[in-house]
Amino acid sequence: MDLSRHGSFDDAVERLVPPDERAASAALDHHNRLTKPRGALGHLETIGVQLAAIAGSDPPPVPDRATVAVFAGDHGVLSEGVSPWPAEVTAQMVANFCAGGAAINVIARQMGADVVVVDVGVATTLDPAAGLVDAKVRPGTANLAVEPAMEREEAIRALDVGAAVAAEAAEGGARALVTGDMGIANTTPSAALISALTGRPPAEVTGRGTGITDDAWGLKVAAVEAGLARTGDVEVLELLASVGGLEIAALAGFVVGGAAARVPVLVDGVIALAATVVAAELAPLALGYCLAGHRSTEPGASTALEHLGLRPLVDLDLRLGEGTGACLALPVVRAAALVLSEMATFDSAGVTDKTT
Amino acid sequence: MDLSRHGSFDDAVERLVPPDERAASAALDHHNRLTKPRGALGHLETIGVQLAAIAGSDPPPVPDRATVAVFAGDHGVLSEGVSPWPAEVTAQMVANFCAGGAAINVIARQMGADVVVVDVGVATTLDPAAGLVDAKVRPGTANLAVEPAMEREEAIRALDVGAAVAAEAAEGGARALVTGDMGIANTTPSAALISALTGRPPAEVTGRGTGITDDAWGLKVAAVEAGLARTGDVEVLELLASVGGLEIAALAGFVVGGAAARVPVLVDGVIALAATVVAAELAPLALGYCLAGHRSTEPGASTALEHLGLRPLVDLDLRLGEGTGACLALPVVRAAALVLSEMATFDSAGVTDKTT
Repeated sequence: MDLSRHGSFDDAVERLVPPDERAASAALDHHNRLTKPRGALGHLETIGVQLAAIAGSDPPPVPDRATVAVFAGDHGVLSEGVSPWPAEVTAQMVANFCAGGAAINVIARQMGADVVVVDVGVATTLDPAAGLVDAKVRPGTANLAVEPAMEREEAIRALDVGAAVAAEAAEGGARALVTGDMGIANTTPSAALISALTGRPPAEVTGRGTGITDDAWGLKVAAVEAGLARTGDVEVLELLASVGGLEIAALAGFVVGGAAARVPVLVDGVIALAATVVAAELAPLALGYCLAGHRSTEPGASTALEHLGLRPLVDLDLRLGEGTGACLALPVVRAAALVLSEMATFDSAGVTDKTT
Repeated sequence: MDLSRHGSFDDAVERLVPPDERAASAALDHHNRLTKPRGALGHLETIGVQLAAIAGSDPPPVPDRATVAVFAGDHGVLSEGVSPWPAEVTAQMVANFCAGGAAINVIARQMGADVVVVDVGVATTLDPAAGLVDAKVRPGTANLAVEPAMEREEAIRALDVGAAVAAEAAEGGARALVTGDMGIANTTPSAALISALTGRPPAEVTGRGTGITDDAWGLKVAAVEAGLARTGDVEVLELLASVGGLEIAALAGFVVGGAAARVPVLVDGVIALAATVVAAELAPLALGYCLAGHRSTEPGASTALEHLGLRPLVDLDLRLGEGTGACLALPVVRAAALVLSEMATFDSAGVTDKTT
């Protein structure tokens, strides 16, 4: 994957256009002629209308081809004791993704989606592997509890990586993009970003991640509080550099890159939602291209969903990340497009409409 | 489809065995060795364990092949003014199903599921069509507000039809069954059955169906109340005959027939849930083979889900029936089986387990 062929994050922001309201209206009218009581497909109809607005056509294209991009990075804040998993697991899981053995590989294969793994900030040097993109900005972040996680320039480079991966996938034919992530300790910077940008206190948006003890949770909240106190009230790019993560910055770029390519972006759990909250600040028009794949059990995920006004498509208590929840939602998105393409109308099927 | 080759509903009840607890335990242990934090796939893990218990093996078979059975019937209670749709729409929609133009056709094609349409009680005589099974017990029910909807013998014959359709599908290779229904006014008998068997008042479990006015809703509640007052406190088969529907009775048979074949049954909305409440009374062991496909907006659906202790897999405000909500859940069920078949373990992938 040659990411240098694509423009920067800023280029993607400049290409953004609002979703097409005329196509949305056409899809809404179309739904009312299909052989079902009006509104009976509930939120599936809303998704169909959004897909029409995104593509600028009714019926919208069916997103048969989809790409899951799993952005991987390490986190200096792990040294605060916020997770019981060692940092080496990030690199080991990247190898597992490349070998096809992780949950996201299984679910993506089922859904006919490609998986691309992007090293944007793993602490160790990784061996080349099929499906692995080396776009390392730096080998892991610094400890956000005591110093900025990264330089502002590094955050911008990570945004560029994400936007370029989205552009590459869309150019390759993907008609839906799915956000994925891997990074031991990455729910900590996610909580920090969500707290800062929604105004909710750290203890309210900080969760148990992979399943941590009360003591580790206390350390995690303290790390978020320390990072936010150190950072103070700054603009969003500065905040992202100070308390974010490399894969989170790349995901924010990926969301905006997908929107710039007018492709629906299925957002996964709390890490991707933190990135989407950042993306919505940097480029508000991108939000109209986003669909929330699922509701993670992490409390910050629900806070971010509410803040963004997104309704999750799947709600099964997942808390794995990798893109698993969003990938599970892909059939729902495809169904929303297919009913607009393939269902008969009252007229065409000779079905009598209701009398009142 | 030669339904006479299969045994009766009572034969199916006699073949029921409890789900296999040893296979469930094996799947639970297996999940804890896979490369993810324990429990991180949430309810997907619970489904995987249930599928193992149903099949008696870990990993459970992946339900690639699935059959949606749409049972169709008409309802005399329509004359009470409970729906704005004319009865002829039931037959017209059966034709739409056979032509492939309805929502369930679109979603079933997407999911690679077969659709079989079973006339168990449409009021008019239907033209033969591909995929249409003529198993009419009687041409529509009587008006349950004033007299028994059907004879007890007719209810038994409808139960037999459903059980035979499930046996036929399982014998044909289906590894998941999906309940479907079509019948103008069929949310009225569903509300009556759910009210009687859960003890909740009619007004609480009676909904807007396809979207009715306040006046029609009042007539609908009154019809349910009249039917239940006329019936009194009777055993469940008598209740089913008195206030049920032909497609509801067939669906109860289908649920039990699927369980007897040890195949998971994905239950759709309020009509299928009413049938499942009946099935659970007639054959309690069948419930362990059921998965709730989705949460319909009909209030009786939530009452029945709670009564049965089932957690819906999809929650998108659908209220169409036909099996659409349950069919949308099929990829979730497949994913639950696939992760147990295909994910790497910590040992096999060389991933370090957490330190505490």
